[in-house]
Amino acid sequence: MRSVSVIGIGETRMGRFPERSLRDLILEAGGKAIDDAGIGREDIKALFMSNFNAQFLCGQGHIGPLASEVLSLGTIPAIRVEGACASGSLAFRQALIAVASGLYDVVLVGGVEKMTHQATETVTAGIASASDVELEAGLGATFPSIFAMIANRYFHEHGNVRDEMAMCAVQNHENALLNPDAQLQKRITVDQVRNGAPIASPLTIFDCSLVSDGAAFVVLAATDVAKAVSQKRIVEVVGCGQAGDTLTIASKRSLTTFDATVNAARQAYAMAGIKPSAVNFAEVHDCFTITQIINIEDLGFFEKGRGALAVAQGKTAADGVLPINVSGGLKAKGHPIGATGLSQIYEVVTQLRGEGGARQLGNAEIGLTHNIGGTAATCVVSIFRGR
Amino acid sequence: MRSVSVIGIGETRMGRFPERSLRDLILEAGGKAIDDAGIGREDIKALFMSNFNAQFLCGQGHIGPLASEVLSLGTIPAIRVEGACASGSLAFRQALIAVASGLYDVVLVGGVEKMTHQATETVTAGIASASDVELEAGLGATFPSIFAMIANRYFHEHGNVRDEMAMCAVQNHENALLNPDAQLQKRITVDQVRNGAPIASPLTIFDCSLVSDGAAFVVLAATDVAKAVSQKRIVEVVGCGQAGDTLTIASKRSLTTFDATVNAARQAYAMAGIKPSAVNFAEVHDCFTITQIINIEDLGFFEKGRGALAVAQGKTAADGVLPINVSGGLKAKGHPIGATGLSQIYEVVTQLRGEGGARQLGNAEIGLTHNIGGTAATCVVSIFRGR
Repeated sequence: MRSVSVIGIGETRMGRFPERSLRDLILEAGGKAIDDAGIGREDIKALFMSNFNAQFLCGQGHIGPLASEVLSLGTIPAIRVEGACASGSLAFRQALIAVASGLYDVVLVGGVEKMTHQATETVTAGIASASDVELEAGLGATFPSIFAMIANRYFHEHGNVRDEMAMCAVQNHENALLNPDAQLQKRITVDQVRNGAPIASPLTIFDCSLVSDGAAFVVLAATDVAKAVSQKRIVEVVGCGQAGDTLTIASKRSLTTFDATVNAARQAYAMAGIKPSAVNFAEVHDCFTITQIINIEDLGFFEKGRGALAVAQGKTAADGVLPINVSGGLKAKGHPIGATGLSQIYEVVTQLRGEGGARQLGNAEIGLTHNIGGTAATCVVSIFRGR
Repeated sequence: MRSVSVIGIGETRMGRFPERSLRDLILEAGGKAIDDAGIGREDIKALFMSNFNAQFLCGQGHIGPLASEVLSLGTIPAIRVEGACASGSLAFRQALIAVASGLYDVVLVGGVEKMTHQATETVTAGIASASDVELEAGLGATFPSIFAMIANRYFHEHGNVRDEMAMCAVQNHENALLNPDAQLQKRITVDQVRNGAPIASPLTIFDCSLVSDGAAFVVLAATDVAKAVSQKRIVEVVGCGQAGDTLTIASKRSLTTFDATVNAARQAYAMAGIKPSAVNFAEVHDCFTITQIINIEDLGFFEKGRGALAVAQGKTAADGVLPINVSGGLKAKGHPIGATGLSQIYEVVTQLRGEGGARQLGNAEIGLTHNIGGTAATCVVSIFRGR
């Protein structure tokens, strides 16, 4: 399989935009990515769209040709991929395979979600469709309660790290202050997190990611083609792994190690030929603060049970040894579900190009994205390197 | 890219099974396909699921890991692909690309839909999400009315073929009499079609396909691997093409030629190195009778404007020169949307293996499947050959 690189990126600001339509979000982010790549629309040979739940939240399916028409891409093949909150990374991976195989030279990958126009209970039901509805959501086990159970189990195994965990939210909010695309730009403290409105003990409102509207797009090209057409620093996809796990939490081997992350990361590191220590920075899936702690352990950045301490010590802050979620993450940048995995890639490519502006990291050569769906029933890990 | 073959198939009966769950349908059809392939679950390296709209109709998304857990497939990568009524063929094509690229040797592809438990108006809204909801469905243009407009335009261009068109339904019902998996096993006449309950003029209830529950699965393997493990006649995927078109009917170049079909078919024929005349039989997307007429023209089987006459002359009947929808098609076998594209492949493989029983065709060496989504905004054409 041949090498593939990112040559274009674009995203909308994430936030509450009830007046914006799916096509409006697609048009802005997709147009930006195509313009950023400096290619013509006729160069794009296929479109891979990610969307989690516009069918339920907006009554709109068949997002592939919708986006293709909005972006004037003609009669190219267009599909939609869905894997809950990992939908964006899954679409990216399908596009990667298609280009790496030689089938297409240049493709567009996009993700979109529109959520904030709906009532809270409708959004909750929509998100709950990512769990097993018969065995979990239908019995009241929505995601905050599931991840609260995971947090309690983590505390049982590794000690009560409630305050250290809160530092994930504090750091992500701090990072978002410098990201103009972030939904929330508001500094918070550990005290605020600890004393926030209770959601499911021990999680408060400040441990939970946001409900957002937004879109993010990426243009992928065979690296040989990328070198010929791109005026910017090329960002090569040096590793990508995907793994799954049971949909139900009851069937999982462990609640505090996500096997899907471990397996997807193993594949990605092997493909890239690197160890976790070679990664300079990462965007990881912080749907809840406890998730970020477990993720940075499962990715091999910190020993199991030591992630929370590392966060509290500032190792994952923007000025730490391994900056995590410099974009602000799902917690503060926002979580427009279908766009999230692609917005993570947007941030990594931005950093690897040195286009991060006020939030630019000093040492950005190898970046990683980690994106899960449901209770880590789906996971994609990708590794990028500036060339 | 290497050659890929089908080594296992399985499907449920299509029909009204409001008491059956998604997992129940998946378990039956997926289990049958794995058993039919004669392989172990550990041999399956990835799962590609198709589902159109369980998020809206059943509140269940994230069908990839749901199916993986139900079928005891462990932690393999699992995704869901959606492209309206073409979802099944899209999932098949993604799986095909992954195996052909060398990424996986053996993968499982499945489709499922559960529709009949919902009220008619809910099903109608669910199906309408495959059109442009802002510009079409939201203004009342549901699919029966859109395809009625297409039929009227076809009559304007090529003459009133109302009765010839009805023969599509008559033949598909006739074929379904011999298919034990078919939803309807009832002979109908042209008079019944013509005088059926009006839906959108000129279409009556008998011009429209069914609302169905069901599932269908296919096991794909690299042909080299297939030869080593399969005890049955291997069915090679010799051609596959995918194309898109605008989602809205208003933006299409023509209402009576589906460009997505023409382009997807061109790719598939080129890959297979054959002309349309080499195809012995086909399963084509008969969501409405007019669609079947347009499809058999766009696929190159009959001249534009001559398809209806060919049907009326019996050329597409089971004993004709080019049997179409010997399974009974969407019209009489049923149309569980996410499963439809894979059920078409189920039929073609069954015929190419000579396992068609009472409906076995005499000359089945090359078979074709044609599957569209929305108003032909998505199309996949695949060509299969017994080896």
